[in-house]
Amino acid sequence: MVSALDSEITGSTYADPDIAACFSDEAEIQAYLAFEIALAKSQENLGIIPQGCAAVIADALDGATIDYRNLERGFRNDGIIVPELIAVLRSQLPAGAANYLHFGVTSQDVIDTALTLRMKRVIELITRKNERLCAQLITLIQDHRYTLTIARTRNQNAAPTIFGLKVVNWLRPLQRRQDAIRSMMPNLLKLQLGGAVGTMAALGTQAEELNSILAEELGLQAAESPWHVQRDEMVGFSDWLSTTAGTVGKMGQDMLLLSQSEIAELRFKQGGKSSTLPNKSNPVLPEFLITLAKYTQFLSNTFKSTLVASNERDGISIMLENLTLPSLACAAGASISLASNAIDLLEVDCDAMARNIERDGGRFLAEAMSFQLRSIMGKAEASRLVGEACSASLRNGTHMIDELSSAVEADFDWNSLKNPLNALGEAQKIIDRSLG
Amino acid sequence: MVSALDSEITGSTYADPDIAACFSDEAEIQAYLAFEIALAKSQENLGIIPQGCAAVIADALDGATIDYRNLERGFRNDGIIVPELIAVLRSQLPAGAANYLHFGVTSQDVIDTALTLRMKRVIELITRKNERLCAQLITLIQDHRYTLTIARTRNQNAAPTIFGLKVVNWLRPLQRRQDAIRSMMPNLLKLQLGGAVGTMAALGTQAEELNSILAEELGLQAAESPWHVQRDEMVGFSDWLSTTAGTVGKMGQDMLLLSQSEIAELRFKQGGKSSTLPNKSNPVLPEFLITLAKYTQFLSNTFKSTLVASNERDGISIMLENLTLPSLACAAGASISLASNAIDLLEVDCDAMARNIERDGGRFLAEAMSFQLRSIMGKAEASRLVGEACSASLRNGTHMIDELSSAVEADFDWNSLKNPLNALGEAQKIIDRSLG
Amino acid sequence: MVSALDSEITGSTYADPDIAACFSDEAEIQAYLAFEIALAKSQENLGIIPQGCAAVIADALDGATIDYRNLERGFRNDGIIVPELIAVLRSQLPAGAANYLHFGVTSQDVIDTALTLRMKRVIELITRKNERLCAQLITLIQDHRYTLTIARTRNQNAAPTIFGLKVVNWLRPLQRRQDAIRSMMPNLLKLQLGGAVGTMAALGTQAEELNSILAEELGLQAAESPWHVQRDEMVGFSDWLSTTAGTVGKMGQDMLLLSQSEIAELRFKQGGKSSTLPNKSNPVLPEFLITLAKYTQFLSNTFKSTLVASNERDGISIMLENLTLPSLACAAGASISLASNAIDLLEVDCDAMARNIERDGGRFLAEAMSFQLRSIMGKAEASRLVGEACSASLRNGTHMIDELSSAVEADFDWNSLKNPLNALGEAQKIIDRSLG
Amino acid sequence: MVSALDSEITGSTYADPDIAACFSDEAEIQAYLAFEIALAKSQENLGIIPQGCAAVIADALDGATIDYRNLERGFRNDGIIVPELIAVLRSQLPAGAANYLHFGVTSQDVIDTALTLRMKRVIELITRKNERLCAQLITLIQDHRYTLTIARTRNQNAAPTIFGLKVVNWLRPLQRRQDAIRSMMPNLLKLQLGGAVGTMAALGTQAEELNSILAEELGLQAAESPWHVQRDEMVGFSDWLSTTAGTVGKMGQDMLLLSQSEIAELRFKQGGKSSTLPNKSNPVLPEFLITLAKYTQFLSNTFKSTLVASNERDGISIMLENLTLPSLACAAGASISLASNAIDLLEVDCDAMARNIERDGGRFLAEAMSFQLRSIMGKAEASRLVGEACSASLRNGTHMIDELSSAVEADFDWNSLKNPLNALGEAQKIIDRSLG
Repeated sequence: MVSALDSEITGSTYADPDIAACFSDEAEIQAYLAFEIALAKSQENLGIIPQGCAAVIADALDGATIDYRNLERGFRNDGIIVPELIAVLRSQLPAGAANYLHFGVTSQDVIDTALTLRMKRVIELITRKNERLCAQLITLIQDHRYTLTIARTRNQNAAPTIFGLKVVNWLRPLQRRQDAIRSMMPNLLKLQLGGAVGTMAALGTQAEELNSILAEELGLQAAESPWHVQRDEMVGFSDWLSTTAGTVGKMGQDMLLLSQSEIAELRFKQGGKSSTLPNKSNPVLPEFLITLAKYTQFLSNTFKSTLVASNERDGISIMLENLTLPSLACAAGASISLASNAIDLLEVDCDAMARNIERDGGRFLAEAMSFQLRSIMGKAEASRLVGEACSASLRNGTHMIDELSSAVEADFDWNSLKNPLNALGEAQKIIDRSLG
Repeated sequence: MVSALDSEITGSTYADPDIAACFSDEAEIQAYLAFEIALAKSQENLGIIPQGCAAVIADALDGATIDYRNLERGFRNDGIIVPELIAVLRSQLPAGAANYLHFGVTSQDVIDTALTLRMKRVIELITRKNERLCAQLITLIQDHRYTLTIARTRNQNAAPTIFGLKVVNWLRPLQRRQDAIRSMMPNLLKLQLGGAVGTMAALGTQAEELNSILAEELGLQAAESPWHVQRDEMVGFSDWLSTTAGTVGKMGQDMLLLSQSEIAELRFKQGGKSSTLPNKSNPVLPEFLITLAKYTQFLSNTFKSTLVASNERDGISIMLENLTLPSLACAAGASISLASNAIDLLEVDCDAMARNIERDGGRFLAEAMSFQLRSIMGKAEASRLVGEACSASLRNGTHMIDELSSAVEADFDWNSLKNPLNALGEAQKIIDRSLG
Repeated sequence: MVSALDSEITGSTYADPDIAACFSDEAEIQAYLAFEIALAKSQENLGIIPQGCAAVIADALDGATIDYRNLERGFRNDGIIVPELIAVLRSQLPAGAANYLHFGVTSQDVIDTALTLRMKRVIELITRKNERLCAQLITLIQDHRYTLTIARTRNQNAAPTIFGLKVVNWLRPLQRRQDAIRSMMPNLLKLQLGGAVGTMAALGTQAEELNSILAEELGLQAAESPWHVQRDEMVGFSDWLSTTAGTVGKMGQDMLLLSQSEIAELRFKQGGKSSTLPNKSNPVLPEFLITLAKYTQFLSNTFKSTLVASNERDGISIMLENLTLPSLACAAGASISLASNAIDLLEVDCDAMARNIERDGGRFLAEAMSFQLRSIMGKAEASRLVGEACSASLRNGTHMIDELSSAVEADFDWNSLKNPLNALGEAQKIIDRSLG
Repeated sequence: MVSALDSEITGSTYADPDIAACFSDEAEIQAYLAFEIALAKSQENLGIIPQGCAAVIADALDGATIDYRNLERGFRNDGIIVPELIAVLRSQLPAGAANYLHFGVTSQDVIDTALTLRMKRVIELITRKNERLCAQLITLIQDHRYTLTIARTRNQNAAPTIFGLKVVNWLRPLQRRQDAIRSMMPNLLKLQLGGAVGTMAALGTQAEELNSILAEELGLQAAESPWHVQRDEMVGFSDWLSTTAGTVGKMGQDMLLLSQSEIAELRFKQGGKSSTLPNKSNPVLPEFLITLAKYTQFLSNTFKSTLVASNERDGISIMLENLTLPSLACAAGASISLASNAIDLLEVDCDAMARNIERDGGRFLAEAMSFQLRSIMGKAEASRLVGEACSASLRNGTHMIDELSSAVEADFDWNSLKNPLNALGEAQKIIDRSLG
């Protein structure tokens, strides 16, 4: 075991199994084979390789016997598995067809295209998860669009808000991540076809046509230039993954803070057990979300270092991509699934919210009251009086507005002012606009 | 001095002065004042504050006396400067207008909007620099679209290419960065107007209209919901800056490698001096480019950590944004300017390229020859023979094709095969498409 | 301005002024001059340079006129300022002495030694601050070695503890940081004297003696080999700085969590103000501590990237060191000073601690009770019963032990069991050992 | 698969198998069981638990049946596996002994101690690898202590040096890493025994004795205070791992640069193959070394973020430690093994070194010549003349000293000056001192 992500015990939590499957040795090799099969088919269609080769290659590759120990040795020697894999495959082909396997391309054409095919699948998987999560959040907003609670800024009680509005802050960035990936996909999901050094030198005079046909065959875009060392779009994908997990992490952070014993506005149906403390119900799901946000943040930073690549191909950049992208995608996917779990298991304790409002002693109405007082006095005086009423309320365990009403001569409807529902501003309209 | 970025000696190199000016204390305060003036104007137009206030506020703020020592003390106490700044400004206003300064908004509305205004300017500045750099690169491609040189993969000679095609790898990612920022701008350059906790509670019943009018007044977009703790778009901007500098870093990496003493295909008009070695002409500009790529990579990683923010506002996230974004923008801007300098000072030594080709002994034609041989034999045999010819050529200091022609019976035009110009594949078409 | 660290307003908070002074342009140049003066003196003593030169050089350098604009231009061209600086200094020396300035050394000898001299000062400054902070923490432990409070694990109430013991977790890592730097200093504070490429080639046959004498003159250790590209000890220093700030960050994290409105066990004499909320007293000092912990963490990561350095000297690594180490040291120093401020301004609210214990309803005695019950039943049964009593207590707003005593037939002194003071284990002994 | 580290194909290269074995699910559980068995034994010896229990526990745990699916479910629910594991183990024990399993301790006592036991093993494994590598490097230094070559600074030819001295720069930091870990071990390899919240509350009055006895039983140090949230020493270990891999990465960087086609001073017996280029022999081993240096750098940065931990235990910090430390240790170990491979397979091409010296045209003697000229003229004039000779030599393809001798009237032994062996300064003495 090399990390908690690949443990038989903890792996299925930290790493999305469907996404992990995209990056299995098997899936990688299958994607390599898919590239080679499609390449032969396209080349045969264009008359680049002899008629009949493509079918022979497709058949042989479908039934190829691949001993991983050879690939392991090949990797250790070559730093990539393609040379050994192609050699193994060629040895299982009749001589004629063997000549036309992997014809005119280079290892990185295979590696990058195979990766792109799986990235496409990862985007589909994450999009589906994300859509489900967004739908859950929209329901949660609708369920709690009138649930009064305390807004907290800088870890202190601030003013009244609506719980549904807190959830808007979870929802909107996720929706924007969906928009972002859609606009990135055309540049991201591109066939790699450059040959040894990006000139398509061994691909013949029909290279341009081949580029188009093969891209279509594989369901990818054709690139206007080989992107062997143009990795900006890959970095964009890595950043998208970590930013997605990071926005989920914010949800976890709120859940963690709001489920603390003294606040207890949120809890989860099955809290985490302790080995010695029967009183504990640990906020494990929020912890997972925050952990994966941080973990993906660092992985995407490693990934970004690949931009500074050498010449026509940089072995170190390729290796770092392989070391980080699978973990990053698996962790980002797991993060969204765990967030869905968290929403499924979430219990919003409206009584606790009311109790915390009660305990706040009306001090969270300070802004509202200072604006109220400004109808009869200057801002500075109003702030001073409200500030003093807050202190008195805290000291005496009284309601801030009671303190204020005894300090200020004014013909206000004090009871109505005590009602936080009157201090919610545009909350409902913002929810409406956010739900679209 | 706290970093090489703010040194009187090294600062102007590492930090773009125009961008640094966007983040000066003065510029920050001016942007705060601009927000407050536009706010008062918009609120007056909507009848939220009394007629006449806006002009009084605008006049007073234009001529306000602000003692930084007060702000310094305020910052140390409050962690932001707005409360102290507003207090100072109010003290310089007549009582009536003082009441309507900063009316109904919160510190973060000011801070974020003021930041956005300056981000807009930063985007303009970087876009202009980037356009200039792209134009230089296009000229360089055109000047060298027939300059034959060695493509190097994994730090080894690989096959023939065109120097202009190397430059395509510098150009295209920069052009895509331009496209990327254009698609990000609508979501990025948004007015922040949420009030204390994002409900617009103290902004009155016309908050929605105010949101639209004020956004227009400031040349920003109106947000559908306050983004106090929705920082995904800011993180996108930070990643855009570091990815831009990273793509420039790749240019630096190539320049550094190609200007090594033994390769010497590139050099700069004024190489860096050594204090003791009269023979040195150090590749200082490439070093700057790589350094800034790495530095911005790390800054953007710090920035990304702000996503996991607490509740309705996270003081730590705001502080980390302030600690990193100015440096990140200044360094990214400097990186592009230095790249322009590098292109201006670049000398492409075509003779050195020819000499390195000569020294390569034709081994970089190995792929071309192995495809040539495949017209008369199988791929495996062809590769083996070419591999042996490469070894012999290296051992004997001979041309690889001479070794091959003596080993292989074939009616080839060996002289023509020796010409690398015949092994360039689609290089010209790729250049056309990339410039297209 | 390029970051909040160098702002006239926020800089003095984020960056320790005394440490910043060590990295000013002036201080850097003074350290360069100190190296050159000491070098000349040592070389004269050994007869390497003519008698009399050292005094002439010392006099001239003491009174040298240095125009930063020249150095700025020199830096932009050379990537270091030494070549230009030496040229300027030589021009102000009589021809004879000019020949013997910077005799036989290279720029990096000056740069690294000058940096080391200032690192020595930084270590002194941080050690003094750290010692003061540790003394404050010891006092705080002593003041609160009997203050009963709730231990919280994974953000949930867990069991009783002593507030002083929380502070032990702040103190011990800081004390170990002091031990760590002491053991690192001999390898860290070493003279750099390698000449152009680390062979001391131009230093003559007495280079070894010069190495010893000059090291002694400058109060540094002599290195057994030039460490131009052996940067492991520098990286160790950078990690020490960020780990020190990180341990201070943990203190900030606890302070932030314990000062939340609903917990309120800690507060600060002058809380941070809001521009619109008179009820706020923001935990600004804890925010600073956490922010600086994160910021230094990232800087030290950038710094670590310098290890992978090229050949006999790597320009990029040197540049990255300059871009990060000053900020890192300034921020780490500021972090400790702000922690001292925080302790000075800290108010430990024992009443709030008692109130939170009251609100906990005795559930934090769950472990103690499950061990108590094990005197009369098995562990599983005991845990089950206590778990149920916790749930009942939470549901009914009763004391857990009252729930338990009605569910369990046992001849226990239930009143004594209700007293958390009886469930503190070795707290006092651990405090003794930690202070010991 | 979740990363190239756990692939059946690439895993054995990127992750040291022996170290990976320390972190397998099996090894982790075995270490948990070892802790529980030793705990019971120590507690029985002190009379804390009934006589006979320890043997029953030891027997049962040795033969325990553990279904990973239960642990997987337990982990997903609890965020740690200990509660479920203990429950499973208890169910396999007779009721009496079941009560005394995991008696008075908490999950983190088990987790941290089990981790420490394996860290001890990791340190042994890495130390052994490191010692082997250092021995190889010492041999390499001795083999090449007279091999003349070019020192390169800032990627440019600089001056003569000895290849053995380059290797000194690889050796010394590794030796210092060995010293560093030795001084860290006493504080690092400590028993964790704090109970639920670090007060040892359920461990009884003999907790202090138990702490000593159990530590001795497990071959660890006794801590003066539980280090549940004092993670500075763990961070120190993580930094040690990444700094070790980073110093190995510098070796890789030099190897990569010196094996470039145009330099070719180093090569490896089995170069990496390309799938299309028979001429390639890729520097795969250096690429691995640099890749792992970068990868571990980022992992240790993630690890450092755990310092800012909440209260008495931070679930997120524990999770991040688990996600990173195994990968970090496996990658650092692999890095050293691969470096040993690289040294085993390294071919130092002294002829190529001589040829590069030849091609340098004597310009790398510029410093030596400028000191030589200073016997008859001022420094400025000497530098100028040598600089001009360098330019002429480059332009004319002549030897720099021939250019100089025709430009300067001097009675020098020009032939002797041409010999780089006379410009090596203290190289031999530095090697002697470095080899100790």
